[in-house]
Amino acid sequence: MHRTHKFFEEAASLVNAELDRLVPESGQSSAGLENAMRWSLFGGGKRLRPALTLAAGRAFGSDDRRLLGTAAAIEMIHTYSLIHDDLPSMDDDDLRRGRATCHVKFGEATAILAGDALQALAFQTIAEDETLEPAERIMLISGLGQAASKMVVGQHLDLEAEGKAVTLAEIENIHRNKTGALIAFAAEAGAVIGKASDEQTAAVREMGKKIGLLFQIVDDVLDITQTTDLLGKTAGKDTASQKATYPSAIGLDAARRLSAEIEAELMNDLGGLGGEAEMLAGIIRFIAHRNN
Amino acid sequence: MHRTHKFFEEAASLVNAELDRLVPESGQSSAGLENAMRWSLFGGGKRLRPALTLAAGRAFGSDDRRLLGTAAAIEMIHTYSLIHDDLPSMDDDDLRRGRATCHVKFGEATAILAGDALQALAFQTIAEDETLEPAERIMLISGLGQAASKMVVGQHLDLEAEGKAVTLAEIENIHRNKTGALIAFAAEAGAVIGKASDEQTAAVREMGKKIGLLFQIVDDVLDITQTTDLLGKTAGKDTASQKATYPSAIGLDAARRLSAEIEAELMNDLGGLGGEAEMLAGIIRFIAHRNN
Repeated sequence: MHRTHKFFEEAASLVNAELDRLVPESGQSSAGLENAMRWSLFGGGKRLRPALTLAAGRAFGSDDRRLLGTAAAIEMIHTYSLIHDDLPSMDDDDLRRGRATCHVKFGEATAILAGDALQALAFQTIAEDETLEPAERIMLISGLGQAASKMVVGQHLDLEAEGKAVTLAEIENIHRNKTGALIAFAAEAGAVIGKASDEQTAAVREMGKKIGLLFQIVDDVLDITQTTDLLGKTAGKDTASQKATYPSAIGLDAARRLSAEIEAELMNDLGGLGGEAEMLAGIIRFIAHRNN
Repeated sequence: MHRTHKFFEEAASLVNAELDRLVPESGQSSAGLENAMRWSLFGGGKRLRPALTLAAGRAFGSDDRRLLGTAAAIEMIHTYSLIHDDLPSMDDDDLRRGRATCHVKFGEATAILAGDALQALAFQTIAEDETLEPAERIMLISGLGQAASKMVVGQHLDLEAEGKAVTLAEIENIHRNKTGALIAFAAEAGAVIGKASDEQTAAVREMGKKIGLLFQIVDDVLDITQTTDLLGKTAGKDTASQKATYPSAIGLDAARRLSAEIEAELMNDLGGLGGEAEMLAGIIRFIAHRNN
C-alpha cells in the first residue's frame, strides 16, 4: 500500500495545483462566489476520480500535462454534485469531509450558484485545454456531458426511492448512474488521452463501471459500520433517511462478499489490459479496503 | 413588424423541434426529471436568444441546420438559469411565463436537478453536433462556458446587491454578466457558425453586448410599468425585493431615454456589418418595444 499512498499524494498534489490555477482567488467582484467554489473544491477530498484518470492515462503512456485539465474538470463536476446533493431540499447534510457544507457556510443561494459555476467551468476547461487535440476535447466533453447527465438522473432516482422498498436491480440502476458513470468516465478519459486502442478503451470503461460499483458498495457499508468522526460526514444517514443501499437490500454480509468478488474480478481484468496497471490496481485495493 | 413576427414564429418553431428531439419524452426511469426539464423548456418562452443565433447566422449565409444545435444549447442554458433563479433561496418566484415555476410544480430538489441536467446537456449537444467542425464546436463550447460562468457571477452579484444602494456602474456590471453575456454569445455564435470574418464576429459580439443591455433596461422598465398578467411573471418584484435596476438608479424617464439611445446606436452598427441584417434589426426593434 505504500506506493499507492505515495501515488494518491502525488495525484492530489498535481490536481490541487491545477484546480488552484483554474479557480484562483481573484479578489475581484466575483470573490464571494469563488470563495464558495474554493471552499468545496479544497475541502480535503481524496481526489479519487482524478487519480483514476492519471493512473489510467499513465498506464497507456500519457504525459501528465495532457491528463491534468480533464482530471481537474472531472473533480469540478464531482464537487458541484456534492454541493447540490448536500442542499436542504436534497440530502440536507451539514457536514462534508469533516467541515461545514457549502450552503451552511455560504448560504443556500451561493451554494447553488457555486455548483452551477463549477459545472460550466468543467466543460470550458476541457474545451480550452490546448494540450489536447480538438477531436480529443470533443470526445471528452461529450463523455463528461453524458456522465454528468447520468449523475443527475441517479440522484433524482435516489431521492424518488427514499422510504420505498427497492430491489437490488433498482439500487444498481441508481448507483450505475449516480456515482458509477462519472467514475467510469474518469478511468475511460485516461485511456482516451493515453491513446489506448478502442478495445483497450472499452475494457477500461467496463472496469471503470465495476470500480464505481465497488466504490458504492463500500460506501454503503461504511455508512453503517463507521462513525461520523471517521467518515468526515454524517454516518448512519442512509438508514435514517431510508436510502436504498446494498446492505439494506441484500444485508451487510452479502454486501461485503459482493465487494470482495468485484475486487477479485477487477484484479483479473487488469491482467488483460496490456498497460502499466500497477497504480490502477493500487486504487482498486484502496477503494475496496478504505475505512472512510 | 410583420416580417419580424413571422421570423420569431419560424425561429421558435425550429428551435422547439430541436429541443423536443434533444429532450424527448422517453418514458424511461428518468421520466420524472425529463418532465421537469420539458415543463420549463416548453413553457412558452420567446426564444429570443436562439432567434438571435439564427438571425446572425443567416446574416452570414449559414444553413439553419448548422445553427440549430447551438441555438438549442443556448436556450437550455437560459432555461436552467431561470429554473435556478426562481428557487426559494434565490428570487423565490412562483410564476414564470404565466404558469407555475419548476420548483412549485415539481419540488425544489427536482427543479435543482432539472437545471443541472439542462446545463450538462447544453455542452454535450454542441460537442456532439456533427454539422459543425471540431474546431468550431470547441470555440462554441468555450464561449458558452464563459457566458454561463458570467451569468452565474451576475446572479450572485445581483443577490448580493439586494437592499443596498448601488451605482449605475454596479448595475451595468451585474447585467453585463447576468443577462448580457449569454445574449452577446447568442449573437456571436451565429457569426462564428456563419464563418464571418474575425472583424465581423467582433462587431457582432459588441452588438450582442448592447442588445443584452437594451434587453435588461426594457425588462426593468416593464417590471415597473406592466401588470403581472401581461408579463406572465410577478410584476413589481424588483421594487419589492429592492433589486438593483436601471429605473431605481437613474429614474424611469432616463431609463427609457437610455433604451432609445441604445436602439439607435444598434441600428447604426447594423449598417456597417456587411451581412444580411434585416432580421437582426427586427429583433432589436422587438426587444426595444416589447410590452412583456
